[in-house]
Amino acid sequence: MQLSCPMPKLDFDKITLGHGGGGTLSNKLLEKTVFELLGNDLLDKHHDGAIFDWEGKTAFTTDSFVISPLFFPGGNIGELAVNGTVNDLAMCGAKPKYLSLSFIIEEGLLVEEFWKIVVSIKEATEAAGVKIITGDTKVVEHGKGDKIFINTTGIGKILPNADININRVEEADVIIVSDVVASHGIAIMSVRKGLEFESDILSDTRPLHTAVESLITQFGKDIHLLKDPTRGGLASVLNEIARDSSRGIYLEEQKIPIDDQVKAACEILGLDPLYVANEGIFITVVKESISEEVVQHLRKQPHCTNASIIGQVVNDHPKQVVIKSGIGGKRIVNMLVGQQLPRIC
Amino acid sequence: MQLSCPMPKLDFDKITLGHGGGGTLSNKLLEKTVFELLGNDLLDKHHDGAIFDWEGKTAFTTDSFVISPLFFPGGNIGELAVNGTVNDLAMCGAKPKYLSLSFIIEEGLLVEEFWKIVVSIKEATEAAGVKIITGDTKVVEHGKGDKIFINTTGIGKILPNADININRVEEADVIIVSDVVASHGIAIMSVRKGLEFESDILSDTRPLHTAVESLITQFGKDIHLLKDPTRGGLASVLNEIARDSSRGIYLEEQKIPIDDQVKAACEILGLDPLYVANEGIFITVVKESISEEVVQHLRKQPHCTNASIIGQVVNDHPKQVVIKSGIGGKRIVNMLVGQQLPRIC
Repeated sequence: MQLSCPMPKLDFDKITLGHGGGGTLSNKLLEKTVFELLGNDLLDKHHDGAIFDWEGKTAFTTDSFVISPLFFPGGNIGELAVNGTVNDLAMCGAKPKYLSLSFIIEEGLLVEEFWKIVVSIKEATEAAGVKIITGDTKVVEHGKGDKIFINTTGIGKILPNADININRVEEADVIIVSDVVASHGIAIMSVRKGLEFESDILSDTRPLHTAVESLITQFGKDIHLLKDPTRGGLASVLNEIARDSSRGIYLEEQKIPIDDQVKAACEILGLDPLYVANEGIFITVVKESISEEVVQHLRKQPHCTNASIIGQVVNDHPKQVVIKSGIGGKRIVNMLVGQQLPRIC
Repeated sequence: MQLSCPMPKLDFDKITLGHGGGGTLSNKLLEKTVFELLGNDLLDKHHDGAIFDWEGKTAFTTDSFVISPLFFPGGNIGELAVNGTVNDLAMCGAKPKYLSLSFIIEEGLLVEEFWKIVVSIKEATEAAGVKIITGDTKVVEHGKGDKIFINTTGIGKILPNADININRVEEADVIIVSDVVASHGIAIMSVRKGLEFESDILSDTRPLHTAVESLITQFGKDIHLLKDPTRGGLASVLNEIARDSSRGIYLEEQKIPIDDQVKAACEILGLDPLYVANEGIFITVVKESISEEVVQHLRKQPHCTNASIIGQVVNDHPKQVVIKSGIGGKRIVNMLVGQQLPRIC
């Protein structure tokens, strides 16, 4: 990608307040970066909004990304911002289609860093088959932001057979996780100031829409719920499901797939991987009778190699998540109260 | 409004990093503020996205708001964030319908300030007839943000008779401004550190969708273009129109409506009101034959009392904006290069 996307020559190497003014300087910055890389038939340089034809059941979702550091093992804030919203749309049972893109830049950001981020946004939109069709750029004074924050807001079309809803969660439904847990959080921690440690662990930031679409095409309404366990990890998402469905959730710790290195890092750091953030996995709650088939199907989908059944919906202990630990004991898994690590996404 | 919206009792008076973690603390903050005030049938507390049925030609637009100070004469960042996106949708010829709402909060923001902002968002959405249907909240460390930044992204339905497009700008088209210029910028300057001066000047933040809808209903395709001159002011927007249509624009300074106090403040500060930001006015480019009628019609619409013809599209001096000054001379009006005042919106 770098080869086909050489950085344009600009007569400034840092972004200044003037680049956020909406005038000539703003145009100069955006023309050769954002518009050059992300241009498409709907992204209108001449208008503040995009116009398109649309029909059907629609999903709409927003996220602001404030991750620190901007560049981390396995990715950067640009692709994270695209994948995050693509995945939120997928979790609604939708096919992601259009995204908005809004930057809040701190004065002094290197144009080179901005360029790398926009290149990575381009790659992520192509991988996810979505278009950026409208955007905004603001610049704040040095010390009033932190390099760059990105908001993406997405629109997707609900897949024909999708019926994803918390009310569809039933007793005996099986809980499946799409791949190994806790990679994103541990990758970020490994480069976070004051916490640094050496590892090969990469963030799992990646789009999940293809796996979700194939799941819904194959199993339709027997897929009852989809959720991505980002901030707060698996524990928080499962607690939300238990709370909102008024049912209990029973987990088996040994069945939760986790990479050996990630597991070791969690042990050294004293962290429970259930609370560590993810960016490229999802949980699905499915009808019991198809659960084995779902796992086999998922394992053939992109980014779902280690899909596993990890638990079940029960009528015991309503609104609580209970886990059977590796050595056989049971304990309640609570929702995360504050957060394990700020600015994980 | 304050009476019907007493601030909820919470066991914390400042927002902390934990409130951005997506766990129990996040729920505690949002439940009694955002969900309590902005709740509606589509805003789903249990899901990261909203789902709705939709059909037709659609406008989609995004803006991040970083205005400083948060509270200013005539408004605050909350209503500005709603009105800004409502107006961008209106400028596409659309009826604003749904908004997303995303906060980036700096640790330490007073819950009281957050509450006031959310109350004002509620009032603005009601005034504009739009619903907030999905959202996100992030918290960054003290010194890594500036109290609060807000992103709103909006979806609207293109009005049946609307055909708003830069390609429709023709020779002899008349340029109309909907009300007095430069109020927002001057109101912000009057309270900006190091610039403070005493005045009664208020920001013009307000929704323009009603005036636009009535204009398009009445005059349909004879309305060729709509633009709101926010950052960069009237001069920048008119330069964009000249550049993108490859036509000239001829303005008459004396015809541009401006409040006496605002004019005096501009003179004292040495500012050209053409470059001062607005939030509650728009420019429309219309067929010459209906221009007088448009002005008369607009003056009866909300927030358009001083609608005036200010100029015309010409074939002379393509891509340039030329103004006849009050004393008769002519000069070229360039686009703003950097910006007059950072963080004006």
